Amino acid sequence: MLRPFALLARALPAIVLGSLVLAWLPAEQARAQAPVPAPAPAQVQAQAAAEDGYQLWLRYSPLPAGLRERLQARVATIVQLGADSPTLRAARQELQRGLGGLAGRTPAPAVAPRAGSVVLARAADLPPSPAREAQLRSLGQEGYLVQRTRLHGVEVTLIAANTDIGLLYGSFAWLRALQAGAADSLAAINAPALASRPALPRRLLDHWDNLDRSIERGYAGQSIWNWWELPDILDPRYTDYARANASLGINGAVLNNVNAKAEVLSAPFIAKAAALAAVLRPYGIRVYLSVRWSTPLELHETRNADPLDPAVAAWWQRKADEIYRAIPDFGGFLVKANSEGQPGPQDYGRSHADGANMLARALAPHGGIVMWRAFVYSPPARPGQMADRAAQAYEQFKRLDGRFERNVIVQVKNGPIDFQPREPVHPLFGAMPDTALMMEFQVTKEYLGFATHLAYLGPLFEEALRFDTRAGGVGTSVADVLAGAQAGHVGGIAGVANIGSSRNWTGADFDQANWYAFGRLAWDPKLGSAAIAGEWAAQTWSADPRVRDAVVALMMRSREAVVDYMTPLGLHHLMGTGHHHGPAPWVDDLERPDWNPTYYHRAARDGIGFDRSASGSNAAAQYAPEIARRLQDPATTPPELLLWFHHLPWDYRMPSGRTLWEELVAHYDRGVAEAAAMQAQWARIRPLVDPRRGADVAQRLARQHAEAQWWRDACVAYFQQVSGLPLPPGAVPPAHPLSYYQSLRFPYAPGHG
Amino acid sequence: MLRPFALLARALPAIVLGSLVLAWLPAEQARAQAPVPAPAPAQVQAQAAAEDGYQLWLRYSPLPAGLRERLQARVATIVQLGADSPTLRAARQELQRGLGGLAGRTPAPAVAPRAGSVVLARAADLPPSPAREAQLRSLGQEGYLVQRTRLHGVEVTLIAANTDIGLLYGSFAWLRALQAGAADSLAAINAPALASRPALPRRLLDHWDNLDRSIERGYAGQSIWNWWELPDILDPRYTDYARANASLGINGAVLNNVNAKAEVLSAPFIAKAAALAAVLRPYGIRVYLSVRWSTPLELHETRNADPLDPAVAAWWQRKADEIYRAIPDFGGFLVKANSEGQPGPQDYGRSHADGANMLARALAPHGGIVMWRAFVYSPPARPGQMADRAAQAYEQFKRLDGRFERNVIVQVKNGPIDFQPREPVHPLFGAMPDTALMMEFQVTKEYLGFATHLAYLGPLFEEALRFDTRAGGVGTSVADVLAGAQAGHVGGIAGVANIGSSRNWTGADFDQANWYAFGRLAWDPKLGSAAIAGEWAAQTWSADPRVRDAVVALMMRSREAVVDYMTPLGLHHLMGTGHHHGPAPWVDDLERPDWNPTYYHRAARDGIGFDRSASGSNAAAQYAPEIARRLQDPATTPPELLLWFHHLPWDYRMPSGRTLWEELVAHYDRGVAEAAAMQAQWARIRPLVDPRRGADVAQRLARQHAEAQWWRDACVAYFQQVSGLPLPPGAVPPAHPLSYYQSLRFPYAPGHG
Repeated sequence: MLRPFALLARALPAIVLGSLVLAWLPAEQARAQAPVPAPAPAQVQAQAAAEDGYQLWLRYSPLPAGLRERLQARVATIVQLGADSPTLRAARQELQRGLGGLAGRTPAPAVAPRAGSVVLARAADLPPSPAREAQLRSLGQEGYLVQRTRLHGVEVTLIAANTDIGLLYGSFAWLRALQAGAADSLAAINAPALASRPALPRRLLDHWDNLDRSIERGYAGQSIWNWWELPDILDPRYTDYARANASLGINGAVLNNVNAKAEVLSAPFIAKAAALAAVLRPYGIRVYLSVRWSTPLELHETRNADPLDPAVAAWWQRKADEIYRAIPDFGGFLVKANSEGQPGPQDYGRSHADGANMLARALAPHGGIVMWRAFVYSPPARPGQMADRAAQAYEQFKRLDGRFERNVIVQVKNGPIDFQPREPVHPLFGAMPDTALMMEFQVTKEYLGFATHLAYLGPLFEEALRFDTRAGGVGTSVADVLAGAQAGHVGGIAGVANIGSSRNWTGADFDQANWYAFGRLAWDPKLGSAAIAGEWAAQTWSADPRVRDAVVALMMRSREAVVDYMTPLGLHHLMGTGHHHGPAPWVDDLERPDWNPTYYHRAARDGIGFDRSASGSNAAAQYAPEIARRLQDPATTPPELLLWFHHLPWDYRMPSGRTLWEELVAHYDRGVAEAAAMQAQWARIRPLVDPRRGADVAQRLARQHAEAQWWRDACVAYFQQVSGLPLPPGAVPPAHPLSYYQSLRFPYAPGHG
Repeated sequence: MLRPFALLARALPAIVLGSLVLAWLPAEQARAQAPVPAPAPAQVQAQAAAEDGYQLWLRYSPLPAGLRERLQARVATIVQLGADSPTLRAARQELQRGLGGLAGRTPAPAVAPRAGSVVLARAADLPPSPAREAQLRSLGQEGYLVQRTRLHGVEVTLIAANTDIGLLYGSFAWLRALQAGAADSLAAINAPALASRPALPRRLLDHWDNLDRSIERGYAGQSIWNWWELPDILDPRYTDYARANASLGINGAVLNNVNAKAEVLSAPFIAKAAALAAVLRPYGIRVYLSVRWSTPLELHETRNADPLDPAVAAWWQRKADEIYRAIPDFGGFLVKANSEGQPGPQDYGRSHADGANMLARALAPHGGIVMWRAFVYSPPARPGQMADRAAQAYEQFKRLDGRFERNVIVQVKNGPIDFQPREPVHPLFGAMPDTALMMEFQVTKEYLGFATHLAYLGPLFEEALRFDTRAGGVGTSVADVLAGAQAGHVGGIAGVANIGSSRNWTGADFDQANWYAFGRLAWDPKLGSAAIAGEWAAQTWSADPRVRDAVVALMMRSREAVVDYMTPLGLHHLMGTGHHHGPAPWVDDLERPDWNPTYYHRAARDGIGFDRSASGSNAAAQYAPEIARRLQDPATTPPELLLWFHHLPWDYRMPSGRTLWEELVAHYDRGVAEAAAMQAQWARIRPLVDPRRGADVAQRLARQHAEAQWWRDACVAYFQQVSGLPLPPGAVPPAHPLSYYQSLRFPYAPGHG
């Protein structure tokens, strides 16, 4: 995988120049494809049953014959020690479903362990064992232990934890391990030795789902929450959603869009949320709500929304009491305030801290939290003013460090703009040691081709989480910051969900992997994205290494392909207005300067790129000193972020020996070539997978290839016109004149909220 | 079933008074429930597999053991005589799927018939047989014949037709017959003797689906047409949609909303429609498009949209040519013009005929048709004017009879207002002998409780189709009018689809029955709705008579229950504004008088009802003289339509002996009691069906019961206030004061387009 910026940050200063070269090496290797042997006819036949993707990675297909028999001997019965509970029932049912599928025989529930039993047991219900007790103590409230052990004189597979939810997580972990393929599956049968605890206590999906079931930036149908039919009619899908999340350890769901409506806090919607909470609760998932700052004012129940007005604070306290009566384990509020037109405390001259703290005090007695988003930016105060949008969140929030209540978490996007295919890490990570921070990733692909482009986001998440902020010296990664490494303020992680009513949940089968990768990294931010891709592919497609490894290879090249054909070399925000589909680098006439692509690329005769060094906005200075120093100089700036931080002449000489213009076109061409290569790669995998999903992926990859060409052609045509330069030697001219690309309109693109 | 108005019209004048009594008899009988015996445990077990409704009525569950073996002997192989085609492939695949499921053994394809073969053969490919040839000639271009016969010396089951599509329809007909249950199934195995041809050539679903995938008046998720991903990505669901429709004989689909957008005729959307057409074509389904009158103007390609401007006509001709290049069998246009704010020819002082004919001339060279909607109504010309909306379509269209091109069909809603739970038949049926007419039913339940109320619409459709218009004497039913009985102008039938992206297609399992009933009646408008319910229940739930007959009984009472708790005794248009959810008879402040419920019920101290007799709007006079005469007098007006045609004092004496006020409250109470009885009825059926669908239906019926109570309470509270009368003796007071019902708001109700 490719995480040059992370490498750079971690290994400063020794390999800075080396990283310019190293950066491309893993991708080049991925490009060297291992040939996929033709499948034996019988195997093709066995896999040919139509699948529609609904099962996600919980398919539990039968293990190969040899493994299946071994597993059967180990899963004769399921025994549960101690009292029953809804969560334990869920664990038992999942084991029965999963082992029944994998072993071809559903284990029967039993009361007493015997040889070949699977035993679910809380720590308190196990016979004394000092070693195990010590291990369990280290696993906390959500961790689990799976081991082969003697219990009451017989050999069993023990799933143990301190809590019921730990037992559910352990059950899923073992089922996952059983499907890892070959030797790993065998080990999981014979000698499972799994022990894990989550690094972060809050692991959430943020649903940008509206109360009318539309989804802002959703590309997989409508919201799975059928608000209209709730609370009376409970779609069984809610349970399957809970299962899938519990299998990853996701333990919270913000049910509604951050661009929230006041009605979500009305009595009917609280009742609807409570009905969902009741379904999700056994799976360890708490519900949270996004709230609109001006709710009491809009409901005509207060006369303003000033956070320092006691009547306003009292209203929120009463509302919190009302919510907790309906949902005793309610998680808390997510707030988008004074951002993109949303109301907020600044409307009353108060700070973000004033606003967050008022809500936090209302929730604190009940154990709830406030997640306050740092995604804020304002229009320039006067025309022509150069206010760098990338710098604004830091400017507004850095000074509030230490001023938030303990139950406030500031939620920060991974990068300083907005979920672009590649951004540098947000400078707030590491810069607020006295505040709990939450990572906000976007799992839905608003800027990466919707559900019609295959882009595995594991490498993007990994790149951000592993980035060393250099806060307080070497070795404080973003993941460490989230976990409270600086001053003990423990935060969390949230992903903007890509889930909808589509049968396969995410619109495209491969987008399931982004949900999966987010969840796995939320549990353990140190996992590698390639290893996660392997897990997912084995469970979702096949543990046959001919399928699994080829799927992983395809996935691991996919995100960089999108970067190359959309926004290479640190370019960003070049997409179409509103819907964010397709290229539109020429747009320069929107209401606010910082909504225009031209604001971001600043291409002109003299060069291209946004100067964020000291000669420009100096946003580079927001990073820790060692990083900031490197970013001031184009030569020590990672090339993949070059034009994010620097405005450079078209003939700037790149380390490759090419000019910047030549390098730019070469990246666009490589992006298209990569999209073509992914298509070819899938053509070789396809005979080995089921025809329905196989065809769907093939159709999407064909469209992705065509749209990669469109991005390349439109951007090259535009930048050529702006630069006045001829195409580099050998470059193919765009298929159409620039005016053609500028004429395209997409009035019914999905994802408008 | 209940079709008193039809009975009345047919049997005039003898049983007019009798109908007042007879009207309720069948419903009373249905209310006497046959007890359902408790199932044997093994049967429950066998049926307990979870079903999600996706298979619709094409589940092909195994027949009972005795029948299964008999069928196996009859389906050893499938043989197709003559050349292959995509439609024949579809028939073969369906027979393999269906017989494989029913018989438990999939018949193999073979070249030569042998004993036990199923033979698919076009008339031209069969050996000579004068009797069969004569029968086949009588079956037309879409009919089919299924019989047990000797062919080339062996006994086979023959499916024969003049065309490929006839063979597909015959295959589905046989599969349906095999699932009818008990003796009927046995007959279909041993001695099938099916022969049928459709009564109407155009049998269409109208999708009110927008290009952004929202559905106007859709309650089952988003559009199944994924316009964004078309034409590149073809959802396999398109094929399943085609199969379901072909199983009923539906042969056309209007893909987009009658409130159409200009872009649907742009090149990208024509390509998307063409991709769908290619999927639907083998199943005999042609695609049609709704077009916006002002399209060429909005696309800036003409300077106006005047139908008599040669430039406008030439534009439409070029557009038709373009469409037919992409879709050679394109069906034609559906047009909503000068209606509810849509543009139309009247904007240029031209008539509906001018508009329709201009489009018709553009389509005629290609064989396309124009379906021009008669659903038009205008605001009153001056304030306070009493323009009866119910009379306007007749006023505008009657005088245009005979002035339409041959390839124009005027599409008329079943009643003169708008798909109310009960309306009289539209007076245009029978009144335009020199014009082809098309029936427009609404399958989606805009006014009947969305997908959360169970209301089987078969009786509603039947009531309309069987109504004797008395056009040209006794015996010209609406169905006859559609078939061209008056002067040979053959029309068709369209249903506004209730299909969406919901897994079970229609939001609620029982709403599948409305799609089914529409399709079956489109093929044969003389079928009975109870018989259709039986077919559907046997295929969709179980052919076990304990299930099937109880499901039918529940269905057959359901529509009248809705009439009773929403709009009894001919009341109409009492629903909430905009979303059309719930009761709002008090609304009187909308922009147009004829959008207000008070406009329709006219309740006041003096009485209630809309006087459409000679003393009022005299809309009654739009019917054939014999019917009109009866409708002038409350005593000879069918009681279920009393307040549609008459404004009567609250103490008007009803044939029951009750006052009108007492009768009204009694109907509301009966509606609620019926909803409760349906709930109880399902509780007895539920153990016999699969748990997933069983639970979903139970949840919906509980909500329906609660909402029936809400309708009753709100309407009784309101009419009591208006009338100033005390509640009738014994009537339970509404649960809340009127102000409570008036305060309810539903800002996120589904179905806004």
